[in-house]
Amino acid sequence: MRSWSDLNIKAIIQIIGFLLLIEGLFMLTGMPFSLYYCGKCYALLISGLITGSIGAILWLSMRKRADKTIGKREGYIIVTFTWIIISLFGTLPFIISGAIPNFTDAFFETISGFTTTGATILIDIESVPKGILFWRSMTHWIGGMGIIVLSVAILPILGIGGMQLYAAEMPGPTKDKLHPRITQTAKRLWGIYVLFTIVETVLLLSGGMSLFDALCHTFGTVATGGFSTQNSSIAEFSPYIQYVIIVFMFLAGTNFTLHYFLLHGQFKKVWKNEEYRYYIYLILITGAIITGILTFLDNDPFEKAFRDALFQVVSIITTTGYITDDYLLWPNMLWIIILLLMFVGGMAGSTGGGIKVVRQLLLFKNSSLELKRLIHPQAIIPVRLSGKAVSQDIIFKVMAFFLLYIIIFAFGTLVMSFMGLDFESALGSAAATLGNIGPGIGMVGPVGNYAEIPVAGKWFLSFLMLLGRLELFTVLILMTAAFWKK
Amino acid sequence: MRSWSDLNIKAIIQIIGFLLLIEGLFMLTGMPFSLYYCGKCYALLISGLITGSIGAILWLSMRKRADKTIGKREGYIIVTFTWIIISLFGTLPFIISGAIPNFTDAFFETISGFTTTGATILIDIESVPKGILFWRSMTHWIGGMGIIVLSVAILPILGIGGMQLYAAEMPGPTKDKLHPRITQTAKRLWGIYVLFTIVETVLLLSGGMSLFDALCHTFGTVATGGFSTQNSSIAEFSPYIQYVIIVFMFLAGTNFTLHYFLLHGQFKKVWKNEEYRYYIYLILITGAIITGILTFLDNDPFEKAFRDALFQVVSIITTTGYITDDYLLWPNMLWIIILLLMFVGGMAGSTGGGIKVVRQLLLFKNSSLELKRLIHPQAIIPVRLSGKAVSQDIIFKVMAFFLLYIIIFAFGTLVMSFMGLDFESALGSAAATLGNIGPGIGMVGPVGNYAEIPVAGKWFLSFLMLLGRLELFTVLILMTAAFWKK
Repeated sequence: MRSWSDLNIKAIIQIIGFLLLIEGLFMLTGMPFSLYYCGKCYALLISGLITGSIGAILWLSMRKRADKTIGKREGYIIVTFTWIIISLFGTLPFIISGAIPNFTDAFFETISGFTTTGATILIDIESVPKGILFWRSMTHWIGGMGIIVLSVAILPILGIGGMQLYAAEMPGPTKDKLHPRITQTAKRLWGIYVLFTIVETVLLLSGGMSLFDALCHTFGTVATGGFSTQNSSIAEFSPYIQYVIIVFMFLAGTNFTLHYFLLHGQFKKVWKNEEYRYYIYLILITGAIITGILTFLDNDPFEKAFRDALFQVVSIITTTGYITDDYLLWPNMLWIIILLLMFVGGMAGSTGGGIKVVRQLLLFKNSSLELKRLIHPQAIIPVRLSGKAVSQDIIFKVMAFFLLYIIIFAFGTLVMSFMGLDFESALGSAAATLGNIGPGIGMVGPVGNYAEIPVAGKWFLSFLMLLGRLELFTVLILMTAAFWKK
Repeated sequence: MRSWSDLNIKAIIQIIGFLLLIEGLFMLTGMPFSLYYCGKCYALLISGLITGSIGAILWLSMRKRADKTIGKREGYIIVTFTWIIISLFGTLPFIISGAIPNFTDAFFETISGFTTTGATILIDIESVPKGILFWRSMTHWIGGMGIIVLSVAILPILGIGGMQLYAAEMPGPTKDKLHPRITQTAKRLWGIYVLFTIVETVLLLSGGMSLFDALCHTFGTVATGGFSTQNSSIAEFSPYIQYVIIVFMFLAGTNFTLHYFLLHGQFKKVWKNEEYRYYIYLILITGAIITGILTFLDNDPFEKAFRDALFQVVSIITTTGYITDDYLLWPNMLWIIILLLMFVGGMAGSTGGGIKVVRQLLLFKNSSLELKRLIHPQAIIPVRLSGKAVSQDIIFKVMAFFLLYIIIFAFGTLVMSFMGLDFESALGSAAATLGNIGPGIGMVGPVGNYAEIPVAGKWFLSFLMLLGRLELFTVLILMTAAFWKK
């Protein structure tokens, strides 16, 4: 390891500066909506100018002087600090407009946006100026873009929690040479992301949504975020719109590399992907169970039960967090299924957060193989994924990731109970923020929000969102003495 | 593997027959109490004669003919079926006496006894004839004896979930040559078990308990069981008696090999044991936190708060399940601490159930080392326990065990919610039976019981008790096709 003095701080500042400049420019994109709906747009303008110019100054002042070599260590610092710093600057429109005057609340809302969580402290969303709501949804979209490059390019190199699997073992960029260069890969996947954004916006528009609502909900969908412009989330929209959002949540929770293959006609390759099949089966099976019970026990009409079941299941598995029905009012066992789905997460390489489908699948497979290994202690029995053996080392890292996730979740529940929350709310808030979902159970359930959480609790949950979004290790490693030691 | 036809069924029948004979004899030991308190003892007499004579017939009929070679496969079958069959016969006194006329209830109560869980379906314990209650507590004592031989002798050989660690890496029988022969080791540890039984009985007698109560509560303590003869568990007994039980619960949750060393003056060896120190620190720290909060928030007198905190913490960590105070009435965060302690369990090599302290410790250590491994990807950084490196393979098995435990717990919660239980009761009943604790949260909390659980739920929870007690894999392996295949 290089020592602290060897750390390429200039390159770090340069990159974060560049990203702030981009953030500033994105802030300005909300101005037309501000002008159209409110006749003024000073909050976004001032915020954009401050963020953009500070970014530009940092970027330009370091551009010439900076040594271009960036190691893993700089990688960890850039990833974590980027999410923190863009969240800090991202609070400006909320604070300057007065929509969220309190800094803690503004930070919670912004990091919830950039981590594509969608947990909100707003009690009356509809009273917030449209331009500010547009920025709020835009944070999701920017966050989703960051996650794509993170999961296909950065995390596999850093070797976090078995994510190298994605690069090494699955039909992904490295293995199948989607494109040898990372930036090219990221750009191609961003192309798909933009394509989805355009198609969903058009479909929502043709369902009767305004351009503003269509864009905001598209941002929340393709990034698996969950911020809505309505207090009732998606519940008041038409069945057509709900089905469109189901489809795009599903797509956003899918590995984007698979979309690339699909668009190039390589259907066989996609169907051979075991994680994909497991993801689909899990949605269909839990969806069918919930549909059945809602139809027979609650006497809902079949189509409504089917739509509600599928919407909530897809929303929670993909960690989006949009809601069409308050699942806490369902029979007990149904919302407990929803709670368990909070520990699944989207596919690796999607914009979804959480543990990820592939890790879940590997753990189930390994658990059953452990029994076989007891019967044949001499034999080497590897876990196989999509027909290929996965190295013991990766399974080890996947298990370590899952365990750390469970430990942090349990610790988070305890911390939130010390903040005065009841058991279900403490458990729900920890699960829903760590998994980047948004709605949990208890007071932070589908019709609740995070407004009443004490200040210290909001900061702690913000930390959990960051932890979960950056695959735990990326953040935790910065807190070890060994990382900073010579 | 040998095929089904190669399985030494005769040897299996012979051993289980012998154990049934012993069980029958143990049933008869309750007769003096039956005669003294009720003037009749037919239920125990008939049960003992039936069990003992069936056992004797099985044993004797196979004794001559049986091939003495017993492999791992026979080991798995003997362990699991012994616990099931002695539980089946153990229901006889309850059914014949009419104390628990329902077979499901009687089986639940008996397997709860033999697995040293202590979960009860009895609503009014004090109305049950004393001789039957004596047998009920005796099932704990027999179960504890079985667990000692299981954990020091059988599980390490079978290689379950890192339990070989106990034999291979720790100051235990194999490594320090406590005694090369398994039967000798077991006998020495049984000697300590009997010694504890005698000492605790004497101490309880001198605290004013009757011989009957003293013996029953001793059985429940040294086996980390938890059946009491009182409806209010230990709450109505004097502080002296509560302290005595705290001490012996602590001792019963300790690795019995360490007691052997202590009795032989090898104090240094014991204190060097990291699992032991971690076990003590965990009790002291959580005990101190709970004492502090009960004193300041609830305004309890200090001694009472200290005693209640320590009693409940030691009772839950060691998986005993005796109660002096309803922890569900404590502030939220305190009973959530108690809930988390349900996932610790006693030390390996104790009579305690659950995950076990050593596994917890190894997982925490490995999680923090994973961060170091990311910083130094080339270095081999092993987990160290008591100063010695633990092989990656054992850490792998420990993680796989923990994961399977969490998966079964989550699945158990879901199953119990399908039985109609509310969330907390479903979660509490799964945690408390899988961990062999007894009281959980919700309706099965400290002042609740398992009477109202539906029949299917009682069978499912009985299965969880068996799973947890036999370290999951011992039971699950019998359910794989590979185990029975040629």
